[in-house]
Amino acid sequence: MNNFTSVNEVANPNKLVQQVLDIKQNTSYPKVGENKSLALIFFNPSLRTRMSTQKAAQNIGMDVTMMNIDADTWNIEFENGTVMDGSTQEHIKDAVQIISGYCDLMGVRTFANLQNRHKDYEEEVLSKFLEYSSVPIISLESAIRHPLQSLADLTTIAESKIQKPKVVLSWVPHPKKLPQAVANSFLEWIVETDAEITLTHPKGYELSKEFTDGIPISNNQKKALKNADFIYAKNWSSYSNYGQTPEVAQNWVITAKKMNLSNQGKFMHCLPIRRNVVASDEVIDNSLVYQQAKNREHAAQAVLQNIVEAL
Amino acid sequence: MNNFTSVNEVANPNKLVQQVLDIKQNTSYPKVGENKSLALIFFNPSLRTRMSTQKAAQNIGMDVTMMNIDADTWNIEFENGTVMDGSTQEHIKDAVQIISGYCDLMGVRTFANLQNRHKDYEEEVLSKFLEYSSVPIISLESAIRHPLQSLADLTTIAESKIQKPKVVLSWVPHPKKLPQAVANSFLEWIVETDAEITLTHPKGYELSKEFTDGIPISNNQKKALKNADFIYAKNWSSYSNYGQTPEVAQNWVITAKKMNLSNQGKFMHCLPIRRNVVASDEVIDNSLVYQQAKNREHAAQAVLQNIVEAL
Amino acid sequence: MNNFTSVNEVANPNKLVQQVLDIKQNTSYPKVGENKSLALIFFNPSLRTRMSTQKAAQNIGMDVTMMNIDADTWNIEFENGTVMDGSTQEHIKDAVQIISGYCDLMGVRTFANLQNRHKDYEEEVLSKFLEYSSVPIISLESAIRHPLQSLADLTTIAESKIQKPKVVLSWVPHPKKLPQAVANSFLEWIVETDAEITLTHPKGYELSKEFTDGIPISNNQKKALKNADFIYAKNWSSYSNYGQTPEVAQNWVITAKKMNLSNQGKFMHCLPIRRNVVASDEVIDNSLVYQQAKNREHAAQAVLQNIVEAL
Repeated sequence: MNNFTSVNEVANPNKLVQQVLDIKQNTSYPKVGENKSLALIFFNPSLRTRMSTQKAAQNIGMDVTMMNIDADTWNIEFENGTVMDGSTQEHIKDAVQIISGYCDLMGVRTFANLQNRHKDYEEEVLSKFLEYSSVPIISLESAIRHPLQSLADLTTIAESKIQKPKVVLSWVPHPKKLPQAVANSFLEWIVETDAEITLTHPKGYELSKEFTDGIPISNNQKKALKNADFIYAKNWSSYSNYGQTPEVAQNWVITAKKMNLSNQGKFMHCLPIRRNVVASDEVIDNSLVYQQAKNREHAAQAVLQNIVEAL
Repeated sequence: MNNFTSVNEVANPNKLVQQVLDIKQNTSYPKVGENKSLALIFFNPSLRTRMSTQKAAQNIGMDVTMMNIDADTWNIEFENGTVMDGSTQEHIKDAVQIISGYCDLMGVRTFANLQNRHKDYEEEVLSKFLEYSSVPIISLESAIRHPLQSLADLTTIAESKIQKPKVVLSWVPHPKKLPQAVANSFLEWIVETDAEITLTHPKGYELSKEFTDGIPISNNQKKALKNADFIYAKNWSSYSNYGQTPEVAQNWVITAKKMNLSNQGKFMHCLPIRRNVVASDEVIDNSLVYQQAKNREHAAQAVLQNIVEAL
Repeated sequence: MNNFTSVNEVANPNKLVQQVLDIKQNTSYPKVGENKSLALIFFNPSLRTRMSTQKAAQNIGMDVTMMNIDADTWNIEFENGTVMDGSTQEHIKDAVQIISGYCDLMGVRTFANLQNRHKDYEEEVLSKFLEYSSVPIISLESAIRHPLQSLADLTTIAESKIQKPKVVLSWVPHPKKLPQAVANSFLEWIVETDAEITLTHPKGYELSKEFTDGIPISNNQKKALKNADFIYAKNWSSYSNYGQTPEVAQNWVITAKKMNLSNQGKFMHCLPIRRNVVASDEVIDNSLVYQQAKNREHAAQAVLQNIVEAL
């Protein structure tokens, strides 16, 4: 493994999930990361990603350096050829080459701006890191994907040992405009497994065909939930009417009553979760969300190990 | 030792002080914290606490992760059952369970809001950490206590080897509204030793009876300072008229002249200190304040060692 | 070596450059910093300095603690004798003594305020750290010097193995008011080598005589660039009309055409660089800037090693 930014870079996703499970079984780890340095670059705040990745790196003996790139203090220029006499202080080209000179491996967290679909779906920021870095890149979430989350999610599902589980990815309400990254990424990973995946969302919330090709889609949440083993809830804003949040007539909150439609299904969410908006307290308190979060550490460790061993 | 949030969790406070003194005598330490991870969570900025605790952890080989919870970037919901469609993004219940999944031990720094006495004295934030954490909690100061400071203070007093020292805790002026935590905590620790403690403050600045029960109180600072071996100065806002700062007619600043009333008494303060407001330069420059600050490191190390060894 | 704040503390600058080059040849390092702790204190944001110094410390096994001193959250008092009843919360005297109690070595990053030349050239902030610290101080850039940058720059020049290289330090345009630190520092280091240094800048941008004594100065950039082996570009604001940026009639941007005047000269800059303002993309893309940045790590490591070994 060189970079880790989407499932496409993973030769065998199911084998990788198995590796995560193996790591979780152990409590002491070979210090394969010793004398290796990981730089974690955040373009926005992070709790889970920051802590789980740092912990994973520490588990294998890596040194970790953290950089928050705050728009207020360090403005980055992304366009080539610009005369930089305005507010941007450093070109991404220079920043990335410099940072990669000080570490053996780089983790990068970026977000969709939800204003320009073309730029987001071209991964404007992440692609510059991939272009200019002299060391491998791990995505800690990008404009349109969140592969470490997806790997942790697949691990959580695998832990149930259900053969051909019925998995439903359901849109849920949220007061803010959110990216499509978690949903996109979950879809492109889950299709690599033996799960039967169904996607349900209100009209107007179709995801990019790039990620939904071949996946059954329903606009009827209740029907979709029937017999589900896993209900993965996530909000996202519109792809077609990019970044907008068209009004939704029906109530898409996940409640205990809706969960009863499933096959004693388990509720999943990537966190942070707005309680009683995305799902009710009762649903969340009987869910897999903490297991998913904990698996973020093991997932990150598997990826770090694989990349470090290939250095 | 499991949690460390008040003197009540310490079986033998004097023995713990002796352990701190022993640690201070050594320069190399057994790496009892190796492969253990400490998360330090700050709800407000910190210099001494952050650096001393991190140094203590490094002394015994622990990995340290730091998180600043800035109200502007990560709003936490504390109420149960809320429909989280407003500004709060994550429930304290979820945040704490997640964080405690990524570490072996957690340090938490919170502050009194000084608006709702009931919430502060119930330790609204710290109590949620204690409720939801799956790992031991160390208080790095809470709404109404600051046990690591108190332990460092007792160690500083113990270093003088004075039998039954006369200790005066004196209210002093300050331009801001401050919590009662340091004063409360000092009182509940000092009564565990052989010291003779006296409390002096202007009328209107009575502390909670929970902490002053059985302690002689005087509203005459000069009288109280007579024959004191240690003068511990600290400002706090009113408990009865909660969070308010009623005007004080007399001058409560600690000056060299006032120190002369004591028994060659030593001046103590937890820092940061506003010079020539709380006490004069001369008093501070001939005080124990740096010794107290340095003892924060040794105190934190003793507590970390005890908790790590009990894991 | 005790402190490292200017070339004056370095017994033999050329020998130090050689040590940096030796470090660069190696990939594994003796852990001479083990059980030693480095505190890095930043009065403003930093990318290169922060990452390169942290990496250097990790290379030799040191523990690193970082503190950002943000004017908004922790106001420091610099004047002695002040009645601190205003916005400042802690005196620099207390802060430095405390911090130095928690580490074996301290790195400090400060900046010129460009308002009061006297204060800047007296190194108001750095000098307080030197006065009150109980441990050695490394400057990570100060009001008027940037010695780690200069050491990295000299190393970069030394790597060319050109005997008596002709080095030109050229003022270049910039939209903001910048300190003179990098230019001052480069001059006081380069004169310690066998290089022939020339300084070129527009009228009104004379540097302090303290740093330019004996150095040929030209106001004609093109003439100065002739036959240069290295062109070091840097903007600075006026020293005589302190902190001001008098208008400059001619175009001082470094272009490929200007580079052609040199002796196949190499372009140098300390970064961050505003592309097509300071120099054209073409010039930067064929420059030594990344090599300089990488040498920051090796330079920091040499300095850390020397200080740690002398502890």
